[in-house]
Amino acid sequence: MLEIMPVWDYSKNTPLYVQLYKYVKYQIQIGTIKPETKLPSKRKLSNYLGISQNTVKTAYEQLCAEGYIESKPRIGMFVTKLEDNLFYSVPFNNKPIKSIKSNNDFEYLIDFNSGHIDLDFFPYSTWRKLTAQSLYSDQSDLLLIGEEQGEECLRKEISKYVFESRGVKCIPEQIVIGTGTQYLMLLLCMMLGKTYSYAIENPGFHRAKYVFKDQGINVYPIPIDEDGICIEALKRSTAKVVYVTPSHQFPHGMVMPISRRLELLKWCEENCGYIIEDDYDSEFRYRGKPIPSLQGLDNKGNVIYMGTFSKSLIPSIRISYLVLPPKLSQKYKEHYKEYKQTVSKLHQNTLYRFMKEGYFSIHINKMRTLYRKKHIILLSSIEKYMKEKTEIIGSSSGLHILLKVKNGMTEEELIQSARKVKIKVYPTSVYYDGHNAKEFPLILLGFGGVKESQIEEGIRMLEEVWFNK
Amino acid sequence: MLEIMPVWDYSKNTPLYVQLYKYVKYQIQIGTIKPETKLPSKRKLSNYLGISQNTVKTAYEQLCAEGYIESKPRIGMFVTKLEDNLFYSVPFNNKPIKSIKSNNDFEYLIDFNSGHIDLDFFPYSTWRKLTAQSLYSDQSDLLLIGEEQGEECLRKEISKYVFESRGVKCIPEQIVIGTGTQYLMLLLCMMLGKTYSYAIENPGFHRAKYVFKDQGINVYPIPIDEDGICIEALKRSTAKVVYVTPSHQFPHGMVMPISRRLELLKWCEENCGYIIEDDYDSEFRYRGKPIPSLQGLDNKGNVIYMGTFSKSLIPSIRISYLVLPPKLSQKYKEHYKEYKQTVSKLHQNTLYRFMKEGYFSIHINKMRTLYRKKHIILLSSIEKYMKEKTEIIGSSSGLHILLKVKNGMTEEELIQSARKVKIKVYPTSVYYDGHNAKEFPLILLGFGGVKESQIEEGIRMLEEVWFNK
Repeated sequence: MLEIMPVWDYSKNTPLYVQLYKYVKYQIQIGTIKPETKLPSKRKLSNYLGISQNTVKTAYEQLCAEGYIESKPRIGMFVTKLEDNLFYSVPFNNKPIKSIKSNNDFEYLIDFNSGHIDLDFFPYSTWRKLTAQSLYSDQSDLLLIGEEQGEECLRKEISKYVFESRGVKCIPEQIVIGTGTQYLMLLLCMMLGKTYSYAIENPGFHRAKYVFKDQGINVYPIPIDEDGICIEALKRSTAKVVYVTPSHQFPHGMVMPISRRLELLKWCEENCGYIIEDDYDSEFRYRGKPIPSLQGLDNKGNVIYMGTFSKSLIPSIRISYLVLPPKLSQKYKEHYKEYKQTVSKLHQNTLYRFMKEGYFSIHINKMRTLYRKKHIILLSSIEKYMKEKTEIIGSSSGLHILLKVKNGMTEEELIQSARKVKIKVYPTSVYYDGHNAKEFPLILLGFGGVKESQIEEGIRMLEEVWFNK
Repeated sequence: MLEIMPVWDYSKNTPLYVQLYKYVKYQIQIGTIKPETKLPSKRKLSNYLGISQNTVKTAYEQLCAEGYIESKPRIGMFVTKLEDNLFYSVPFNNKPIKSIKSNNDFEYLIDFNSGHIDLDFFPYSTWRKLTAQSLYSDQSDLLLIGEEQGEECLRKEISKYVFESRGVKCIPEQIVIGTGTQYLMLLLCMMLGKTYSYAIENPGFHRAKYVFKDQGINVYPIPIDEDGICIEALKRSTAKVVYVTPSHQFPHGMVMPISRRLELLKWCEENCGYIIEDDYDSEFRYRGKPIPSLQGLDNKGNVIYMGTFSKSLIPSIRISYLVLPPKLSQKYKEHYKEYKQTVSKLHQNTLYRFMKEGYFSIHINKMRTLYRKKHIILLSSIEKYMKEKTEIIGSSSGLHILLKVKNGMTEEELIQSARKVKIKVYPTSVYYDGHNAKEFPLILLGFGGVKESQIEEGIRMLEEVWFNK
């Protein structure tokens, strides 16, 4: 039943029927009772509110008389259908909420979004089968909230996976599962403390920067060179914690070589600090020898490793994880278990079985081949159509590249002219702290979610609007 | 393939085969390469690492000689199976991680956990059907990450639901979906600011207190009386924000009457502050007239309403929501959209269809009837077995009651003696800030997840261990 709950004011002499009439009228006016809604019957409402049927009747009659509601014989009373805008206004007397709409309504033909992945090869039937199998009453336990840290069976699979794929050494007790990178960073900030400064790569992952800043932490943006974060600049800062993306610097894409990794670990040790290693898409490497994760190189327990299934599987299930060094793991257990697990237990169970039964490694291999193919198509299309007028940056791994476009246009102009041919490309200036003094703007092109057949076409069209106006 | 990634040290004169041998041996010792694992073939590993097959061969031979690995003819090299503990030790040289295990292994017969719900009546087949229907390639969009604020279709359904059931007035744009109460509170703290003090109920929901304190906020515990939080004490504090559970005070269970609600709103207005109204289980009301939510009574836009599907549906999908007043909603859109959505888009879609197609209201009605029945059985069992020796507190709504037990035992003694008959009951002292000076301890009994048939039996057995030793 539609719950109608006026607050009776016994202090005034206003009769109850008037109060009820005014209340319902107001609710209709502000749109909380919608047109064509059936109102409760007189008998029901009088029982519910503990008032007489006559009071309700009189109130309803008044509303009918004023046209707010109408009676349909033998069916009941209904709120009148009028032009939507007449009734439905914003609640309270405050300013209307300004809707900051992005260009959601604009229809792009090709979207080079770096957060997109290829969905055509997602193993729908396997995932569906595994999901449905968890939704039977004999597994009702999966409907309850699970372990704070994440399900142990899934943590076991993750610990095997990160060792085999990334050389990360850990036991399941060191893993904390959580819903996305930003939530895990919020948790981390609390565990690491907020009194000393953190360093981030500049340019770098802006969402990480926001988390640190919103937590009231002083943040040092540290420049990068061709090997990744600059150790000298890091040393000059007073930061104790550094957030890095060594497997595939975001957004520049370089892979940090061993020498720089060892320097970074040394800085960390001398500084009694921590390294947060965000390994967001290292599954997809196209060139060069594998380089072990910082966590795998670390013997002192100073590295916090972060991984996610958003790139390697699907983003919508929101499964990411931290691998904590032993001393932080202890701290987590002592207090931060008070934070309930944030990831669906059902999804955790499905993913566990997906990994356990070998589907995940099959999927990763398939996707690696697919992305390698797309990567080749992208690079050769750029070579074919705009070789001398552009420069490709960061193309040895991951699901995006940067393109330096040498036509004199600004970043915004490049994006807008691409929009004219319904192609969505992305800025990199948002990842810079302070002014980006590059001579030519850098455009970010994600290719994970673009169909093979569209990549070349997309580059051809970009060449046309960027260079042949 | 098992990825073996030694870091070559070219500075020393140690031959590569020794470095490889030492690396693999160490990985076996610390347990990252597990017993019975198949090692990559010599050819594969030499290709992978870019070293000669002979180097790999010599390293493998040394490992064989020392018994770490063994060759199975025509199959390959395998890590030797030994007693698990011999190899598998904790990584690094740090202290082993202390495992703080709760009594997870202890088998209880009856568990009066207030976080449990009745799962026997969960509509498995409907939920399974709706879930599986989303997992087809023509809906691949559901695998991507969704709107930061939560899916619009679900927010629409929630806005209808909260109005109809709780008199909450809002439009979908004011709703922010998030994974559980604590995450949403973290977001809220950032939006509201942390420079002024927050007030909480004492006793009150400890997880809310932890969030505020971990965010560095000064927290005032405010005593409660029979109507809920004490306005006078609140006025004496310098708090600007107050967190309350007016529909069913946690843990004491009283419903805040209209008069106190209006006083609280007045305090808030005079103080230019905010009220966080946590309406965690108001769906289940057994007595008295419905009282509108604080949000519904508020005309100034000072109330933030919080709701969850953890009690009314299932906890494992982790869907909670905030209803922000317009001024905060604006603030959210301006900056906090940088925080990606934390709830699974797949679950959001399933819930949307579950609500849209009317299943949710059927479910709620069924559960209300069921919990009312359990509630009656619980109260009458207490009446039957331990009437004069106990006192029931907070029994007009929700999924738990408090029981004051007058047998001279401490809270811990009551819990431990219940454990002897395999019944799990819960403390309330954890919800108090400072000393709880009550003459008799209060025990928390949740009944949502206890089977009807077990409630009376549970109370009978508790009477025996508590009063007839």
